[in-house]
Amino acid sequence: MIYLDNAATTRPDADSVRAAMRYLEEDFFNPSALYKESFSVHKRMEEARRQLLSHIADPAKFELVFTSCGSEADNQALFSAARRGNFVTTEGEHAAIFSSARELGKRGVEVRFAALNKDGTVNEADLLSKVDEKTSLVSVIHVGNETGAVNDIEGLAAKVKKINPRTLFHSDGVQAFGKIAYRMSAVDLYSVSAHKIGGVRGVGGLIRNKSKTLYPYIYGGGQENGLRSGTENTFAIMQFAAAAEKKFASLAADHARIASYNQMFRKGLDGELFCILSPLRASPYILSVSARGLRGEVLQHMIDDAGVLVGTGSACSARNRFSRVILAAGTDEKTADGVLRISFSAATTEEECVSAIGIINRCARELYERTR
Amino acid sequence: MIYLDNAATTRPDADSVRAAMRYLEEDFFNPSALYKESFSVHKRMEEARRQLLSHIADPAKFELVFTSCGSEADNQALFSAARRGNFVTTEGEHAAIFSSARELGKRGVEVRFAALNKDGTVNEADLLSKVDEKTSLVSVIHVGNETGAVNDIEGLAAKVKKINPRTLFHSDGVQAFGKIAYRMSAVDLYSVSAHKIGGVRGVGGLIRNKSKTLYPYIYGGGQENGLRSGTENTFAIMQFAAAAEKKFASLAADHARIASYNQMFRKGLDGELFCILSPLRASPYILSVSARGLRGEVLQHMIDDAGVLVGTGSACSARNRFSRVILAAGTDEKTADGVLRISFSAATTEEECVSAIGIINRCARELYERTR
Repeated sequence: MIYLDNAATTRPDADSVRAAMRYLEEDFFNPSALYKESFSVHKRMEEARRQLLSHIADPAKFELVFTSCGSEADNQALFSAARRGNFVTTEGEHAAIFSSARELGKRGVEVRFAALNKDGTVNEADLLSKVDEKTSLVSVIHVGNETGAVNDIEGLAAKVKKINPRTLFHSDGVQAFGKIAYRMSAVDLYSVSAHKIGGVRGVGGLIRNKSKTLYPYIYGGGQENGLRSGTENTFAIMQFAAAAEKKFASLAADHARIASYNQMFRKGLDGELFCILSPLRASPYILSVSARGLRGEVLQHMIDDAGVLVGTGSACSARNRFSRVILAAGTDEKTADGVLRISFSAATTEEECVSAIGIINRCARELYERTR
Repeated sequence: MIYLDNAATTRPDADSVRAAMRYLEEDFFNPSALYKESFSVHKRMEEARRQLLSHIADPAKFELVFTSCGSEADNQALFSAARRGNFVTTEGEHAAIFSSARELGKRGVEVRFAALNKDGTVNEADLLSKVDEKTSLVSVIHVGNETGAVNDIEGLAAKVKKINPRTLFHSDGVQAFGKIAYRMSAVDLYSVSAHKIGGVRGVGGLIRNKSKTLYPYIYGGGQENGLRSGTENTFAIMQFAAAAEKKFASLAADHARIASYNQMFRKGLDGELFCILSPLRASPYILSVSARGLRGEVLQHMIDDAGVLVGTGSACSARNRFSRVILAAGTDEKTADGVLRISFSAATTEEECVSAIGIINRCARELYERTR
């Protein structure tokens, strides 16, 4: 089995899981309890928090709030910061932002969607033209989960703040964290998730500029400095920290290697059958292609039967035939119907890529012959 | 080490963890993806859902929505159902309800707190007198997390609905699920959590009457029938189902055995030093006692050093000197200052109880001699 749907979820890193098992076994204590065994777990949780944060931000200025997942982090950012005026976002967002934005609209916040460029990035002029004195929040995805398009979120945040210094800037960094080089500066709020980089499910985080107000989203016992209640998921947190440590240590090397795999696919997929949707400057971890004229879902099943697992657009929006984001980047419906999303992880090997290219080409050719 | 703080969290059941490891290893797939490997995981997740639900409710009438924890389930219930009019709850609620209620108050929903009886249960007459034609939601904790007091939630729900048939009834069942016999009927919404019964952290659930409206709280990819977005935490879900299966299979036997341990403490704790706060009819899993005149926290540390782990009130409200709930049941501050919460699990043994009683008595005597 060759797994190339790593943007949907990754296989948890086995070493980190093994190391974190102690938090399910001997060190299972509630970190908020008052005996020394709990203090010790609490202390190690705080080390994990600092370690995770340090990879992309200065702990003097930023803080990491653990949430249960990336979607929760996105929800907290939006429902906390976009309480009034208008909210500006893009047509290239993950469903966690898109669906939350629709809900904000129902609650009386005006939602403005900026258009995408052909390469899947947000149109900067359109985005900035939508920001005004009443804009409470702007949210722009860092790396698009369908095309891998990379937005210059720091540049955009600085420009937004020139128009309105009180506007907060959020970015969904779920497909970026641990995969592309980045340091937080002008961005105020940033969502991350463990399970896209070898972490387990059950933990994500919202990184925030400590000088900006953030409201809780889950109320209760006051964990996470009052910003996220609920008994801390120490197993998942510690495993996330260990998996991220590994990922960040090899970030540049992984990036270069995966860029070479991405290139192999761009060159190796049959040009008569496939067109490449992801821009050349996209994150190499995600490659969207289209077998135009074929049904992506049917092709995916054939490829699955041949032992290769790829996505069709985002697994999260798997219920819709056409990807909202792919169409927003100007792709026609016939092309959008044939989309496959191939996504890599640090565990992907060159041999797997060679085999997968052969299998995908063979299946597409077979489907093409059968349906023409 | 003798662990008697199981109301804060339990040691995850080792067999269930072992069985669920496959969802972190070979079967790590995103259950919302479209290849057969994902379908298979999705199917098993649906079996786990049905199995968990069946323990306490009829799947024809009720549905289980997986959340990340009990606190999230409480938040979803309240922010979904108490959007207008007034919200009636009790002074004996867990912080996840109490803090959410305060937030509801800020949003313009009138919040009414019903008083407690001396035994920690809600005063029924007071509760019912607060329900009127504008009451959108009533929430009453099933088993109090500090005293173990058991509320007759089905009886209360039926009486509330006689006053106002449109009022929804929610109960936080986190300390009840898998521990006391119960079937859902008139109650509309019920919160459960995995990690209080040998499950891992990272999963809880909100059980709801399918004929009543429930709004999502985390918006996004539309998982959980649109009611809770975010990639499903299959490892935690499967482990929860296995741990609960075990717990429900031995519910009556565990209850009887733990009631005998509870009795051992009631009789064995030095009557000169301790008074018992938990009513006789409380859940046997939780026993609150007070070493009146001594500081519970200091005593807890001495007991900890002697190898026994107990709580002081709820771990979640560990920041406050006095427990809000203990005071609400009419306990004076001097008594409230000396509170220890002893809480059991299915893994607790008689030998542990015998040892713990001796250690707790010895430490309390020593502290008493030292401070008088």
